Amino acid sequence: MKVLVINAGSSSLKYQLYNMEDESVLAKGLVERIGMDSSILTHKPTGREEVTEVSEILEHTTAIRKVIDILTDKENGVLDSVSEIQAVGHRVVHGGEAFKASALVDDAAKAEIRRLFDLAPLHNPAAMMGIRAAELNMPGVPQVMVFDTAFHQTMPEHAYLYAIPRVLYKKYKVRRYGAHGTSHDYVSKAAAEYLGRPLEDLKIITCHVGNGGSVTAVRGGVSVDTSMGMTPLEGLMMGTRSGDLDPAIVPYVMNKEELSVSEVNSMLNKHSGLLAISGISSDMREITEGMEKGEPNSTLAFEMYEYRLRKYIGSYAAAMNGVDVIVFTAGVGENSVVLRQKVCEQLTYLGVELDEALNAIRSGEPRRITTENSKVDVLVVPTNEELVIARDTHRIVLNSK
Amino acid sequence: MKVLVINAGSSSLKYQLYNMEDESVLAKGLVERIGMDSSILTHKPTGREEVTEVSEILEHTTAIRKVIDILTDKENGVLDSVSEIQAVGHRVVHGGEAFKASALVDDAAKAEIRRLFDLAPLHNPAAMMGIRAAELNMPGVPQVMVFDTAFHQTMPEHAYLYAIPRVLYKKYKVRRYGAHGTSHDYVSKAAAEYLGRPLEDLKIITCHVGNGGSVTAVRGGVSVDTSMGMTPLEGLMMGTRSGDLDPAIVPYVMNKEELSVSEVNSMLNKHSGLLAISGISSDMREITEGMEKGEPNSTLAFEMYEYRLRKYIGSYAAAMNGVDVIVFTAGVGENSVVLRQKVCEQLTYLGVELDEALNAIRSGEPRRITTENSKVDVLVVPTNEELVIARDTHRIVLNSK
Repeated sequence: MKVLVINAGSSSLKYQLYNMEDESVLAKGLVERIGMDSSILTHKPTGREEVTEVSEILEHTTAIRKVIDILTDKENGVLDSVSEIQAVGHRVVHGGEAFKASALVDDAAKAEIRRLFDLAPLHNPAAMMGIRAAELNMPGVPQVMVFDTAFHQTMPEHAYLYAIPRVLYKKYKVRRYGAHGTSHDYVSKAAAEYLGRPLEDLKIITCHVGNGGSVTAVRGGVSVDTSMGMTPLEGLMMGTRSGDLDPAIVPYVMNKEELSVSEVNSMLNKHSGLLAISGISSDMREITEGMEKGEPNSTLAFEMYEYRLRKYIGSYAAAMNGVDVIVFTAGVGENSVVLRQKVCEQLTYLGVELDEALNAIRSGEPRRITTENSKVDVLVVPTNEELVIARDTHRIVLNSK
Repeated sequence: MKVLVINAGSSSLKYQLYNMEDESVLAKGLVERIGMDSSILTHKPTGREEVTEVSEILEHTTAIRKVIDILTDKENGVLDSVSEIQAVGHRVVHGGEAFKASALVDDAAKAEIRRLFDLAPLHNPAAMMGIRAAELNMPGVPQVMVFDTAFHQTMPEHAYLYAIPRVLYKKYKVRRYGAHGTSHDYVSKAAAEYLGRPLEDLKIITCHVGNGGSVTAVRGGVSVDTSMGMTPLEGLMMGTRSGDLDPAIVPYVMNKEELSVSEVNSMLNKHSGLLAISGISSDMREITEGMEKGEPNSTLAFEMYEYRLRKYIGSYAAAMNGVDVIVFTAGVGENSVVLRQKVCEQLTYLGVELDEALNAIRSGEPRRITTENSKVDVLVVPTNEELVIARDTHRIVLNSK
């Protein structure tokens, strides 16, 4: 079965085409600047040159048509006909409490996603545009939604509830949902497999740190706590997000600076984090360069980022009464040698013993970065959220037949 | 030297009179319902019966005059004359960045406290009323301010800064200040003394858990991180305060429920925490009773409270790369056998080995509750914030002469 994986944002659309016989990627690409002047389609057929097309793409339906055109293009395509695409898998950020697993798209599911717009106003409407666009371009082809929140639906009540009036949970479902679930799920399973140990016996802390970031406590293969909250603002310091904050600061700053609800949200989501502290960038590579040059604001930004990540690891070790495996993944987690080093150097109390040579290796494969004697195995596991979406889509479509 | 310690709230005033020769308490008491009908003065001379007086006390100056009257009263007093009071020590909640230690009251200090009204709008104006009232009643007697925040002024920048635009720190001093500093200071020193180990060698986590609560990481005798933030809202779940929260929930709820800044502050400070989750009480004794009767909301409230406290302990173990001593103090920390038990049972990964018999002992003295073999010493240390205030006042007044 060939599965098209779609990750739709408000003005962008990423895709990957999988052949599920061998889980190989046939092609992948990205449409940017949807709805703006001169939209850009970047397409990469596996083993061949990347191609770029500039055209006017005003909305998602046209974007998917362009994707299908290039996938079936004589020169740059990988399919003879669109009919070879037998299923489409969509990344959906927020599944609320309704979706505890990936689900087939139908009218009821779409209605539920619309009800969740309120909890993920930036992300879920974009996912819905992607779904509608795929339906219009590929009528009759089954579609599956894979949620960032579903993996975390196993959290116990004492971890997902906030200590605020319960009416807010009853009326508006204010609670912790978490995010990056497909990634935490994938890397925790891959870690157990790499170590050759049964997942159900392991206490794993997965650190998905990229431009956004979250840490998850995975016990026996299920999420028992995670650092992102009702929204992706809570938890770690991120590229442009503040992460944890005294909640009283929000009304204080609104009052002082006469900010509206949407202005304060924008400040905390888009103008905070590494960017605010370093004053130069939200990108950990630039922060690290700044630090290496002795630039004090970059150094401080790095220290805050590392310190807060390390505190979450400590917190989840206490949540599970111990930890067997710590996993680093995503952009920063997979690539920042210095971040992993600084974190591990201050976790010797847990028995973490970093192997600096192993930590310095760059590879696209899962690998251990601790010594043989380390009491905790620290791994780097490249994440693959698209593969999880393709696998779930494949499985659900097969089972629905 | 005899020192009067005053803790002034907006409608209450607590006092203790110390004889600093032997640090004994000569008398203590409380004025309640200041500014309301029928104010109540409760006075307890050490070793004698408690007495209660009901009268009209419209403001703090009258309250302190009533306190002086009863301290010098023939029947219930402990002094021949007010002139025996040679210094007055005041608890002041917020010392901002200006006060890194206790300080003598003078015009400059008072002006600084007024500048800090903004950061502690509920607490600092009350402290200032107490100071003015003491000045009017005891002109010429030196007064000292002892701050809840001063002990935490040693925190490094990466622990006290929030990851938000730096202009908010520059303009409004938005940062972490912490609280309960006199308590964290006192119990960490008392713990080292009890263990007969040098404070400078120890990594101590102090858990001050009462109706309010905070956890502090104390390394070498200085605070390196603490759970309360710019305000006392952040951190642990408390009696009526939410503690940590996705900051995005604040504008979300303001929007949904059409709440003003002061209404959302009131909700998070007065109608959240144990009270909101249990639906019955903000008092841990009642929550524990409810839990023992199998009441599900009390059980959940207890679990959340315990879980969040334990996560902070884990977090600070990671912050200091280990922990030698964990201290429980304040109302809940000193008295809740079951809370200490549940926390310690899930910290065996740190080498904590609880002695259940020792944990069940009730006494007013510092004591260990772990076994001889425990890698971490867990102690119960009754706090004594008034004694710290009396000592600081005594020392500063002696040095100023």
